[in-house]
Amino acid sequence: MEERSFAIGVDYGTNSARALIVDLKSGEEVAVAVADYPTGDLGIILDPSQPTLARQSPRDYVECFYRAVGEAVKLALDAPATTSGKFSPERVAGIGVDSTGSTPIPVDAEGTPLAFQEKYANVPAANAWLWKDHTAIEEANAITEACLNTGNGYLDKCGGVYSSEWYWAKIWHCLRENPEVFSAAYSWVELADFIPAFITDNKRPETLARGVCAAGHKAMWDRDHGGLPSEEFLTSLEPRLAPLRTRYASETYSADHMAGRLSEAVAQRVGLVAGIPVAVGAFDCHMGAVGAGVSHGDLVKIIGTSTCDITTLPLDAPVATIPGVCGVAAGSVLPGAYGVEAGQSAVGDIFRWFERNLTPAQYTSEGQALKNLELDVAKLKAGESGLVALDWNNGNRSILVDQALSGMILGTTLSTTAAEVYRALIEATAYGARVIIERLEEYGVTIRQVIVSGGIAEKSPTIMQIYANVWNRPIKLARSSQTCALGAALFGAVAGGAFATIAQAQAQTVGYKETIYTPEANACGVYDKLYSIYRRLHDAFGVKDANGNLYSVMKELIAIRDASRV
Amino acid sequence: MEERSFAIGVDYGTNSARALIVDLKSGEEVAVAVADYPTGDLGIILDPSQPTLARQSPRDYVECFYRAVGEAVKLALDAPATTSGKFSPERVAGIGVDSTGSTPIPVDAEGTPLAFQEKYANVPAANAWLWKDHTAIEEANAITEACLNTGNGYLDKCGGVYSSEWYWAKIWHCLRENPEVFSAAYSWVELADFIPAFITDNKRPETLARGVCAAGHKAMWDRDHGGLPSEEFLTSLEPRLAPLRTRYASETYSADHMAGRLSEAVAQRVGLVAGIPVAVGAFDCHMGAVGAGVSHGDLVKIIGTSTCDITTLPLDAPVATIPGVCGVAAGSVLPGAYGVEAGQSAVGDIFRWFERNLTPAQYTSEGQALKNLELDVAKLKAGESGLVALDWNNGNRSILVDQALSGMILGTTLSTTAAEVYRALIEATAYGARVIIERLEEYGVTIRQVIVSGGIAEKSPTIMQIYANVWNRPIKLARSSQTCALGAALFGAVAGGAFATIAQAQAQTVGYKETIYTPEANACGVYDKLYSIYRRLHDAFGVKDANGNLYSVMKELIAIRDASRV
Repeated sequence: MEERSFAIGVDYGTNSARALIVDLKSGEEVAVAVADYPTGDLGIILDPSQPTLARQSPRDYVECFYRAVGEAVKLALDAPATTSGKFSPERVAGIGVDSTGSTPIPVDAEGTPLAFQEKYANVPAANAWLWKDHTAIEEANAITEACLNTGNGYLDKCGGVYSSEWYWAKIWHCLRENPEVFSAAYSWVELADFIPAFITDNKRPETLARGVCAAGHKAMWDRDHGGLPSEEFLTSLEPRLAPLRTRYASETYSADHMAGRLSEAVAQRVGLVAGIPVAVGAFDCHMGAVGAGVSHGDLVKIIGTSTCDITTLPLDAPVATIPGVCGVAAGSVLPGAYGVEAGQSAVGDIFRWFERNLTPAQYTSEGQALKNLELDVAKLKAGESGLVALDWNNGNRSILVDQALSGMILGTTLSTTAAEVYRALIEATAYGARVIIERLEEYGVTIRQVIVSGGIAEKSPTIMQIYANVWNRPIKLARSSQTCALGAALFGAVAGGAFATIAQAQAQTVGYKETIYTPEANACGVYDKLYSIYRRLHDAFGVKDANGNLYSVMKELIAIRDASRV
Repeated sequence: MEERSFAIGVDYGTNSARALIVDLKSGEEVAVAVADYPTGDLGIILDPSQPTLARQSPRDYVECFYRAVGEAVKLALDAPATTSGKFSPERVAGIGVDSTGSTPIPVDAEGTPLAFQEKYANVPAANAWLWKDHTAIEEANAITEACLNTGNGYLDKCGGVYSSEWYWAKIWHCLRENPEVFSAAYSWVELADFIPAFITDNKRPETLARGVCAAGHKAMWDRDHGGLPSEEFLTSLEPRLAPLRTRYASETYSADHMAGRLSEAVAQRVGLVAGIPVAVGAFDCHMGAVGAGVSHGDLVKIIGTSTCDITTLPLDAPVATIPGVCGVAAGSVLPGAYGVEAGQSAVGDIFRWFERNLTPAQYTSEGQALKNLELDVAKLKAGESGLVALDWNNGNRSILVDQALSGMILGTTLSTTAAEVYRALIEATAYGARVIIERLEEYGVTIRQVIVSGGIAEKSPTIMQIYANVWNRPIKLARSSQTCALGAALFGAVAGGAFATIAQAQAQTVGYKETIYTPEANACGVYDKLYSIYRRLHDAFGVKDANGNLYSVMKELIAIRDASRV
């Protein structure tokens, strides 16, 4: 029998799915294929009358599995031999899957998405509720309040606040938005769990393998309190939520466990062989952190439309609730360590919004608008624009956990240019990240360096240098351009027995690029001042009862601007 | 001798000069000609390293007098007869001139601008300091402080705060910015005074006719304290300012007085006859208010790059200092009434800034970007965007009198469009105007209706309807498209003896367009809410020691947005 020295990772992002085939001896990436979700606006079903609505078609997920994995397999078959030799379907040790989340999908009693039925295909509520759907703000607030009132501790590991992005809030909102869909849904399955379930033909809600990552971080599942929130608690929120509790497996699993084996039907569609082990699913950022080589003292930022920020702590570290940080969970990233997760609700999305809506023709006429803008951004000095922005166009995930916030651009003059505004938006995302870093450090989590991954990290050296200067920390780039898919592949490999542990798999396959972004002292000094202004605005608009005397804000910005232009 | 039944008004705006020839029996406008200032960016000398700098070439002023008046005379000669019959140069009763201000020009002992000398032509400090130049913020603050400390009352009629836009602050800043130019300048002459002086060849600084309008509103001239500020006071600011006091006529005049008679040399250049009476100059908005038919209870807004807001009060009204309002002066608008002046530092300038810098190709590709944007703005409802902006891209003239402020756009999401931002900027200018209206009413000045004039007023019905809704007051449009030039012509006519009083001239010539914008109750209700949010931001960023708890701001905007989309 041939040595099974390859693994496949499948990463479901916000706009597309990608499949990666990796050589497990060297980390060489044998093949990558991307499939864009065909439905809606860049794969997202929108509703102009509800700007916070964001749904996706579950059909897209299945179709893009076939397209991306099928294409990657073809490419790998044609690729030259790597360290492990020539790829063949028989040599695949395992498949891992990661996805955005919380992205729950309403399903019938067989575990089939309602949206697969003709009558529901075009009903937004019957499709997948994408992570960034913020229609459930009221429900999230009510859940937070109920947890606080009952003192049940359900939110202790989620930063103390339930988010409108999460499982129960969305399900509850569906009940209000479209009661018919709610009634038709037998259960709700996270995208990260749905794909392993679908490709292993193990879809029944009660029995499919649910990942502890989604369950623990988004559905308040905790072994210590008996799994999901109690029936009594769910009933107190809304009696019709309670039955969902029993349509959910009582146990959940970390992603180094096997969810099942690849079905014959799916294997045929993608050119693989039936029976390949498939790992339990997890969220993109958790697997991405593994693919980026996370260890204690590192903050891994997967920078895409939004960011997911991951760090780890030794299991013997004192871990308290870190207010506003999405979650602290044993084993959620690396076995044998606490995984700590935070994030920014929008980063690439803000840049793309600016490109689409407020970028003049001089930058857009030949495409590559953001690249062109970045060239002008690079000519500006820190502080020179006199601008400061709030990066809340999609609300704030960490540390405010508040979707009822919005973006702001402050300091405009009659000379303010598009490049200056774009730079201010970049800086705002850097300040938002610094708030997270400072919050972690306040609670004893040291961040010595930042490891970044994602398209922006690789393609935008100007943005990365600004980030290093705002954070006053060196930034390394993960060697893989597909850290999430790589992490997923590694979990597939471990679930399939190719390695005994994730740590062994990382040691064998993960590395860094040569470029390291080092903080520049002058800019760091200016950014300390600007960050303190950002922080005052952050608190004035984002923190209840904060002292918001802002009289000096515009004056200080002008002083910083004038000083930086000397 | 033929009846002298025509008058010429010449209006110096921010980007161009225009000449109007009016029939004094009917108000018919016989000819209008515009000449754009050729120098700099749309007539303005800028400095990228100093975004607050705005200068103009005095050569442009002279050249544009020749071009605009010469062209208007030609057009009038070719025009059909009006009520008064056929135009001829001999039938011109008088010429009036208005200009932006405070726009002081450094001149030599003959009254010739320094910039006419080759060596100074390209030195920004040696050119005219355009009203919107805000380089003199420090000097203005120092003047305000000195007035307050000495209790000299110099600022009682200027709203209590000296502005960086004004005469003494600019001269003092020149001393610091370019001491050589300061030393070379024998005196400084307002543009409104320079043109009548130049065309009547009566330019010597000590003897040229200075208008009370510029002197009283910008140079702290007041008959009650002996004219200009005392030598002692000027010395206390900066000893080298003191000699300027004696290079300034001791008396100043309202614009119904004659400054001199048209010189032979100038008359020949423009096709007129020598000896035509020329009125003392005044600021555009004061003459514009007259051309718009101002009377008690009306607020006349001349809306251009900025706005100037004028109302009048009976001389027996109790008039206190109105904090933050530029000036209250007897006879400055209408003889026999107090003139009250306020203004917004940028309106059209903000729209043009947005057009140039942040408007995407879909609107700009075929020109007329603001018109195209306005079509989409009209499709939006009040409150629908969830945005609120601060209209401070050029600082705030009334009621904060603070140039060290800047613009802000708050409430952006990932769905925010260019049209929504543009609408928010329009609304911000409306809120800014409402602050002025409310401040006037707080001090007993009733505003029953608003009369608007200027290009935006005529060409942008959507903007005017938004204004009516935000102000909750009807808006009438002055019949003349050239109210400033018309007002100037009427002062020319009175100075030349064609009418005994300005009131008689107005009764004969001024009227209104048929369209009246009436407030719409629903929108007014939404705008009351949005205005209260604007006002909280206004105070948080603009008022020292204001209570700035802004936690609910973004949430309220989202609630208003959601309600308006139902």
